[in-house]
Amino acid sequence: MGAALEDDTISAALDRAMAAGAEVRGTTSPNPPVGAVIVSAAGEVAGVGATQPVGGAHAEVMALRAAGEKSRGGTAVVTLEPCAHTGRTGPCTQALIDAGVARVYYLHSDPTSQAAGGARALAEAGVDVIKLEKPPQVEDALVPWLWAMRTRRPHITLKFAQSLDGFTAAADGTSQWITGEAARDWVHADRERRDAIVVGTGTALADNPSLTARFRNGSLREHQPRRVVIGKRDLKSAGDAASNLRELGYEQYESIDEALYELYASGARDVLVEGGAGLASSFLKADLVDAISAYIAPVLLGEGRGVLAHPVTQTLKEATRFQRVGMKPLGDDVLIEYVR
Amino acid sequence: MGAALEDDTISAALDRAMAAGAEVRGTTSPNPPVGAVIVSAAGEVAGVGATQPVGGAHAEVMALRAAGEKSRGGTAVVTLEPCAHTGRTGPCTQALIDAGVARVYYLHSDPTSQAAGGARALAEAGVDVIKLEKPPQVEDALVPWLWAMRTRRPHITLKFAQSLDGFTAAADGTSQWITGEAARDWVHADRERRDAIVVGTGTALADNPSLTARFRNGSLREHQPRRVVIGKRDLKSAGDAASNLRELGYEQYESIDEALYELYASGARDVLVEGGAGLASSFLKADLVDAISAYIAPVLLGEGRGVLAHPVTQTLKEATRFQRVGMKPLGDDVLIEYVR
Ligand SMILES: NC(=O)c1ccc[n+]([C@@H]2O[C@H](COP(=O)([O-])OP(=O)(O)OC[C@H]3O[C@@H](n4cnc5c(N)ncnc54)[C@H](OP(=O)(O)O)[C@@H]3O)[C@@H](O)[C@H]2O)c1
Ligand SMILES: NC(=O)c1ccc[n+]([C@@H]2O[C@H](COP(=O)([O-])OP(=O)(O)OC[C@H]3O[C@@H](n4cnc5c(N)ncnc54)[C@H](OP(=O)(O)O)[C@@H]3O)[C@@H](O)[C@H]2O)c1
Repeated sequence: MGAALEDDTISAALDRAMAAGAEVRGTTSPNPPVGAVIVSAAGEVAGVGATQPVGGAHAEVMALRAAGEKSRGGTAVVTLEPCAHTGRTGPCTQALIDAGVARVYYLHSDPTSQAAGGARALAEAGVDVIKLEKPPQVEDALVPWLWAMRTRRPHITLKFAQSLDGFTAAADGTSQWITGEAARDWVHADRERRDAIVVGTGTALADNPSLTARFRNGSLREHQPRRVVIGKRDLKSAGDAASNLRELGYEQYESIDEALYELYASGARDVLVEGGAGLASSFLKADLVDAISAYIAPVLLGEGRGVLAHPVTQTLKEATRFQRVGMKPLGDDVLIEYVR
Repeated sequence: MGAALEDDTISAALDRAMAAGAEVRGTTSPNPPVGAVIVSAAGEVAGVGATQPVGGAHAEVMALRAAGEKSRGGTAVVTLEPCAHTGRTGPCTQALIDAGVARVYYLHSDPTSQAAGGARALAEAGVDVIKLEKPPQVEDALVPWLWAMRTRRPHITLKFAQSLDGFTAAADGTSQWITGEAARDWVHADRERRDAIVVGTGTALADNPSLTARFRNGSLREHQPRRVVIGKRDLKSAGDAASNLRELGYEQYESIDEALYELYASGARDVLVEGGAGLASSFLKADLVDAISAYIAPVLLGEGRGVLAHPVTQTLKEATRFQRVGMKPLGDDVLIEYVR
């Protein structure tokens, strides 16, 4: 059994594993975007891996492959407890044991019953197993997946872009562009990490959105989320009003419940609700908002369309207080991120 | 003449001078809150000083006193060009020359005609004089004073506390407390740095505010800003509605113009407008908002009272875009600071 590595080495390896997992976010569902790092017995990073798209290898296997013989006597640092079940791929615990890894650190326990038991299986095979602790952070790519596993529905992030005084559009309806280029770039990078983008029929008809993840020059990013519309109004016979979605293809559901059920059943774990005000209010009323991404522009309008169409609460004391987890400058705009 | 010091030494001395100036902010008007540091010829900080209240010594003199003989052949780093005029105190340029200071660095040029000419007077006396450059930053205590000198009226910061979706109070009128304790502490520390706090008669009557700078336990902070109300309504016969202000004393002006004229004439340079929505809208409409301090709470209300009572613009393109200069986490709240 190898000697324990310095805390600093483990902490750096965990950061690297989390970054590897974040990089594949949006491409792995229904599997979790896991990152893994193999540190050799000598204390050097020997291999880094992340979950491959469905049917491909898990993160641990990718990292072991990259590390080769240096895995022997080494340490694995993984963002999620290694799986013990034999699914589409063999169990990762067995791969770690076979490679002769002496010690495994992992951040999150696996909440799924079929995969769970990995830590125990490793310990029984004589591998040191240690669970790591880290305060919640917005960079943790596993949060939506873990949440979805627990709630049996996709994790919902409500996103909106608004003036400093809470308007998503001016009195005359103009809303392009309330935020600047840096914020819009970030929105598109964020879309790429999601399994699906959801809007209400109101937005689909009013804005003729594409709901694609694009670069500034208009070309498509590599990964595209599913395009989803909620509401009863028919977009098929809407003429030009929803032509972009009709051209690109979209899914429509008549209710939030139906949408969440179908999205989850077909593998979506991480869903971004981009409005409008009517649908956002419905998600909040139903207590289905797990996270908020608020883009705040440096303008005061005094009147216009609000972020929400319906009251959430009459009195301050009853309002849900979210927990702030991120705060990011984007030019003169600010992105503030919250979780429930 | 002493050898030039390392850039790092000058930069560290400037930071220290700025911090010294920031510490006396709110206590020096109509004089500017200047900070000064004397670095000895050996490169060590020998004295730190800041502007004393009216009638007291200027920053340079305080720093020279603290440094004593170590000033000789040393370097002065000052946030404002040293004054050349003989006002209530003798000119600082003469004090620097008499103390044998070899080199003077300063950040801001003095915009006032009576004080200007300091750099030239120093240079004529054989002192090296160098103007420093630094990007604008929210920590710069001289910004409001410099702005007031240029515009001949007090610098105006509009402050508000709101829900994430732009409401300062819930539908039932409840607004205490929209933000948490850390944000409220910061507001009180900020009040202490201002020359005056301004509200409209609406707020004075509705909230019975004290407009004092307090600690969490309710006791008063050392420096208290002037308490100012704008509007025609009479607070004297308002019964309990404005009893706190009547008890503590306040100034009332019938118009914004009158208020700004009188405040400036009586020495106020740095003024915080705390609302309400009616007065805030009036300041914006008159294009008199030089800076914004927006405290954003982690709640969505969906309805309530807005930050502004009147429209500022009908269309997005015409809206004034402010420049973001600060972003500060305060528990789950965020303070975003802007300048024009
Ligand atoms: N700045 C931003 O961040 C942003 C983002 C998006 C949109 N917007 C603006 O928002 C405006 C559109 O807002 P909106 O409120 O009219 O439209 P919306 O929220 O996109 O759509 C409202 C529609 O969604 C459906 N819906 C809402 N709640 C539902 C529920 N519980 N179950 C089933 N369906 C539900 C209903 O569709 P049916 O009536 O068809 O059943 C409803 O009419 C546009 O002008 C757009 O520009 C701004
Ligand atoms: N969350 C926050 O940050 C915050 C801060 C402050 C207040 N508030 C809330 O805001 C509410 C009060 O808002 P409000 O709009 O009714 O009151 P307000 O803005 O405090 O006062 C409005 C009054 O100010 C005077 N005024 C406005 N513009 C003027 C101008 N150009 N020249 C001269 N006088 C002018 C007028 O007084 P006369 O009519 O007397 O002439 C006007 O009626 C309160 O309920 C308070 O709780 C919230």
